[in-house]
Order: sequence, then structure tokens, then C-alpha cells
Amino acid sequence: LHYSIAVIPGDGIGPEVMEEGLKVLGAIEESHGGIRFARDVMDWNCSYYLQHGKMMPENGLSILKDYDLILLGAIGAPEVPDHVSVWELILPIRRAFQQYVNLRPVKLLKGLESPLRYKGHADLDFVVVRENTEGEYSNMGGRMHQGTPYEMAVQNNVFTRYGTERILKYAYSLAEKRSKKSVTAATKSNGINHSMPFWDEIVKEVSKEYPEIQTNLYHIDALAAYFITRPETFDVVVASNLFGDILTDLGAAIVGGLGLAPSANINPERTYPSMFEPIHGSAPDIAGKGIANPIAQVWSLAMMMDHLDLPELSAVIMNAIENVLQDGKVLTPDLGGTATTKELGDEIVRHIYQG
Amino acid sequence: LHYSIAVIPGDGIGPEVMEEGLKVLGAIEESHGGIRFARDVMDWNCSYYLQHGKMMPENGLSILKDYDLILLGAIGAPEVPDHVSVWELILPIRRAFQQYVNLRPVKLLKGLESPLRYKGHADLDFVVVRENTEGEYSNMGGRMHQGTPYEMAVQNNVFTRYGTERILKYAYSLAEKRSKKSVTAATKSNGINHSMPFWDEIVKEVSKEYPEIQTNLYHIDALAAYFITRPETFDVVVASNLFGDILTDLGAAIVGGLGLAPSANINPERTYPSMFEPIHGSAPDIAGKGIANPIAQVWSLAMMMDHLDLPELSAVIMNAIENVLQDGKVLTPDLGGTATTKELGDEIVRHIYQG
Ligand SMILES: CC(C)[C@H](C(=O)O)[C@@H](O)C(=O)O
Ligand SMILES: CC(C)[C@H](C(=O)O)[C@@H](O)C(=O)O
Repeated sequence: LHYSIAVIPGDGIGPEVMEEGLKVLGAIEESHGGIRFARDVMDWNCSYYLQHGKMMPENGLSILKDYDLILLGAIGAPEVPDHVSVWELILPIRRAFQQYVNLRPVKLLKGLESPLRYKGHADLDFVVVRENTEGEYSNMGGRMHQGTPYEMAVQNNVFTRYGTERILKYAYSLAEKRSKKSVTAATKSNGINHSMPFWDEIVKEVSKEYPEIQTNLYHIDALAAYFITRPETFDVVVASNLFGDILTDLGAAIVGGLGLAPSANINPERTYPSMFEPIHGSAPDIAGKGIANPIAQVWSLAMMMDHLDLPELSAVIMNAIENVLQDGKVLTPDLGGTATTKELGDEIVRHIYQG
Repeated sequence: LHYSIAVIPGDGIGPEVMEEGLKVLGAIEESHGGIRFARDVMDWNCSYYLQHGKMMPENGLSILKDYDLILLGAIGAPEVPDHVSVWELILPIRRAFQQYVNLRPVKLLKGLESPLRYKGHADLDFVVVRENTEGEYSNMGGRMHQGTPYEMAVQNNVFTRYGTERILKYAYSLAEKRSKKSVTAATKSNGINHSMPFWDEIVKEVSKEYPEIQTNLYHIDALAAYFITRPETFDVVVASNLFGDILTDLGAAIVGGLGLAPSANINPERTYPSMFEPIHGSAPDIAGKGIANPIAQVWSLAMMMDHLDLPELSAVIMNAIENVLQDGKVLTPDLGGTATTKELGDEIVRHIYQG
């Protein structure tokens, strides 16, 4: 087996956690003969932007298109407005490659404690399916009356039937493969009266095609609260781009922190490369200190293995992570330890060779 | 002192919790001579809609305009689409009366435990200032290509300089009166690239007028996570309509539940009546059982007293609520007890007479 990966370490702690991710990838290759991941590192990030006036080369997307997979660290630096760095790199990739599924597990790993007083491992194990190409993240809109007291900005949320149906169908198909047979859809049709009632209608239509799956439709405000009060009731949660973004950071918080949460930007048809990344940002405040938690990045590699239909390699990585957490001896500061990024990465690698 | 109140009990558990609210109001009048709240009850709700085809009479707003205050229970019933019931009653009131501040305390009351394992009373005491008239809740937008596979819906988020400045100024003025001297503003300018960068710019401008206040600008996804991981760092949180809605349900969850959280829809200029309501909905699933928690509604009365510059009466109500919670003998099921709505209301009233 041979796969090609475009590696974009990015900014801030991105390159720091990516280094550990690549180490883990190397360990997988070495310890499990027969698999090869050829990797090319791209220096596309905010420094690149400051030098070239763009986040990636003109033909960046066509360069990426020829890879099987993309691995991303984190993007963003104080010197470049976030909407520039993100809109010129992450979002074009998600869209050009029709990575319309952003898959984000909310799972309490062995060895970790939830900040929720009465919730344990059995209560925290679900997955959020986030729409990843349209909705609230649209570049339609603009400003008027600049420089006057009646200046205003308008932002269009764009929901297509095509985009909404495909993400819902993905969520329901995923629910069919899981045991609870339940889909929870986030809405806000009481306050947002064009796009969200449309979303609700399509939820109702698609749900009819999956009669064995139970559907719950909750307003996003209530749903966010339920993540705290009854996370054990969820199995597959499906949400629009923005709602999925909010719910998954919240999900990361209830299973122990942003340093742990991975995500897979998937093109289910496999027409284009899929992209794997931590959900955390570039964290300029701790960048350069070598103390960032590399687990989210490493976990994203496990998601990559699942995407490649290599569940046994995914399990090797997840076991190594959970062993390290259960040992509890080599942990980064966000987990209450004093280890460096590199030490935690090395420890995961050690467990991979042992496993 | 004499005030007139328009009372809208609404649907589901609305009338049930309102009954206790009005009992508390009566107890305040009786026990603290010299104050009178004349109240007129309006039957505007989803049953009214099913009979009349609208949520309130044609001249509903001009009827309300002549009252000093509005007290709302909860609106919404399974038979009427939420976007109808809400857009024809709650939202027109909030807008017509320029109730542009939606004030929502996130405070762990004495006698309650947070579901967050390591957070206690000292960690959970801040307030969310939510923009209440524009933003993501706009009726601009619509649908095209109905009945085709390329059907789509567009929703416009509308942010005006006028609307954004006034909510931010309110938040900063509030922060000036509190001890931590800090304002945290929710944004999402990395993903939402017209309205949110505009919001950020105005945050930066307004913050300059309040040099003694510290400003933090966080993306809504990270901020939601911080509500779980470090709620103790917040004092005044200011957010757009939708973000404030999500953050306050989350806020309710971390201080013990949706049955507890009140809100004040304030017209700071006092040109029009302000409105006080629980943040929970009409909860059709438990309506009619007499087990809804009336505390959110009663707490909203305490907020009303604060709005009337009657802090001593606000304190009387809050002490009564906290005494009942600390006793822990008369609690509704959502708080782990077996009391009815009426029993909990009576118990609060008893403490008011004692206090
Ligand atoms: C009923 C609904 C539109 C409302 C809102 O979102 O504003 C409610 O959730 C609230 O928080 O007051
Ligand atoms: C960087 C940002 C635009 C991004 C998003 O909101 O999609 C991030 O928060 C994420 O969750 O991947």
C-alpha cells in the first residue's frame, strides 16, 4: 500500500504538533510493514502570506489535487487577519475538494476525566457530522454606507438542497452503522426563519428514507445545553457549518480539552483528497514553547487510517494514545503534566512499537 | 409607587410558571407596603393563533406600549411552527420596543451545585449581554428554485453600526460598574467574513472609549469551550443575537439548568416597556403536569425590580429563592425533588413573608 500525503504544518503550534504526527506516521510504517506514506511538506502559512501576499501559490489547489491525502496542522497568526488566512487556505481546500463532511468524534478517552461531574466514559461517545462547504460560512455579503453612522454589513447564509441533503444522508448512513440508531439534528428555525425552516424540511424528508433511525430536531441553544446535561443521549449529531463548529469545540471541552480533538474533512466519493487536522487553532500564546498537546493531531491520523479502511492501524494509534493517557506519566501542561510536545509524541511512538 | 404590567403567560408551561410569578408579585406588594403592580393578562398564544390566525390582535403592540412593563411566560406549541409563533409575538415586541439589550445572568445560586466538576460559586458569576434586535435574526432572505434539486434558501444576517455600537456601549458601561473590569466579546470573524470582521472593528473602536476595561475577543467556538473550562475568567460577555442565545442556554446548563435562567429584554432609554421572561421555552413534553420549575420566571421578576431601581426588592426575591434551594426540601423534579410547580412557588412566597 502506498499513499501520498500533502503536509501543511501551518502556523503557531501547527508545525510543533505536526512534527509529532509525522513521527507517529513513521512509526506506523516501520512497525507495520507493507504500508508507505510518501509526504511532501508545503510551507503555506501566514509567513508565506507576508512574503508572497497570498496563503498558497496560485496553483496551490491543483498541486494538492494529485495527493491522496492532506494533513493540516493549524493556520493563523496575529499579523494576518483570521478571515484572510482561513479564507485563502482552509476553506478553499474544504470546498474545492468537496470535503463536505467534517467528522468530529466526541469521545472521552481512557485515562481522562470529563469536566462534567457526573459523566463518565459510557456517557461520552458520539460523533458530530458537520456540514463543511456552505451555510453560514459564505463569502456572499458585504458592507454599505462606510464611514457613516448608518454603516452596515450583511452576510448571507446559503443553504442548498443539494448541500443539505448530502450531509444529512451521510449522517443517517453513519447512524445505520452504529448501535443507537439515532440522529440528532441542530436547528434554530424559531429564530432564523428562512434557512433553518428549509433545513428542518429536508431533515424531515431525509429521515423518512431511514425509518429505523430515530430523529431528534433540537434548537442549537437547547442542544448546546444538552451537551452538558445529557450527552449520553447522543449518537450521531448533524449540524450546519457554524453550528457544527460551535458544538464540536464544546464537545472537545466536555471530553477533556481542545488539545485532544481531531477532525476529518471528508470527500465521501473519494474524487478528491480528504484532509485531516486537529480542531484547535494555532494558539499563538503558547507557540514556540514546545508544550502544545500533539494528541489531536495524532488522533487525526487515526481518523485518516479509518478513512483508508485500515481500522487495525487506527486502533494501533488510538491504543497508543490511550495507554499514554492511562499511564499518566508523560502529559503536557494542558493535561496537568509537565511534559513537552516532543516527549508526549515520543511516548506515543514508544507505545506503537510495543503494541 | 405604581406600575402597570402586561402579562402574557403564553403556551405550555408558560401559564404554569407565570401563576407562581404573579403569586410572588402579590407577596411583594403585600409584604412591602407602598408598591402596586396593576396587571392585565393577555391571552396571546398559540391557541389564540389557531382561533384568530395571528398570535396577537392587529393593534397588539400599541396595546402593550402603554404599559410600564411586560411579563412573558413562554411561547410555542407543537401545532404552530416555531418561526410563526416567535416571529409574530416575541420578536416584534423585542424590536418594536427597542429592547436591544437582552441581559442574562450566569450565576450559580446558593444551594445549587454546578455540573462542572471543579467549579463552585466563586467561579460562576457573570452576565451575558445579548444583542436583541438584529444580527442573525433577520427576516431578510428567502428561497428559490422550489421543487427542483437545486432549490436553495438564503438568510441575511444584518449588522448595523448603530445596533452594534449601542449594545457594545451598554456592555462596557455595565462592566464599569462591576469589579473585574472586563468585557469578553464573541466573534467568528475567521469563518464569517463580512459581518463578523465588522463587529470586531466596532469592538475595537468602542473599547478605546473605555481604557480601564480589558477586552477579550474570542471566536464563539472557543468561547463556548471556555464556558466549560474557565468560566471564572468572565465578567461581562457581549454577543450577537444568535451567539448570545447559544451562550446563555449553555450558561444556564453550567449553573444548574434551564429551569433557573431568567432574562430581561431591556430598552435602556425607557422610551418603551421592557420585558422579563424565563429563557426556557414552553416545554410541551412536561406541560400540564404541574412540575415545571418556576424559578426562572420568579428570578425574572427580580430582574424587573433591578430595572425599576428597586434593588432591595430584587434582593428579597433572590434571598427567598436561595433560601428555598438551600433548604432543599421543596424542589421540582428537574432539581432532583418531587415538589410541584405550585409547592415550590408557595415555598418562595413563604420565605418572602418571612424575609
Ligand atoms: C424563542 C426563541 C426565538 C428565543 C430566541 O432564540 O431568542 C429563545 O430561545 C430565547 O432565548 O429567548
Ligand atoms: C479556522 C476556522 C475557520 C475553523 C472553522 O470554524 O471551521 C475552525 O474553527 C475549525 O473548527 O476547523
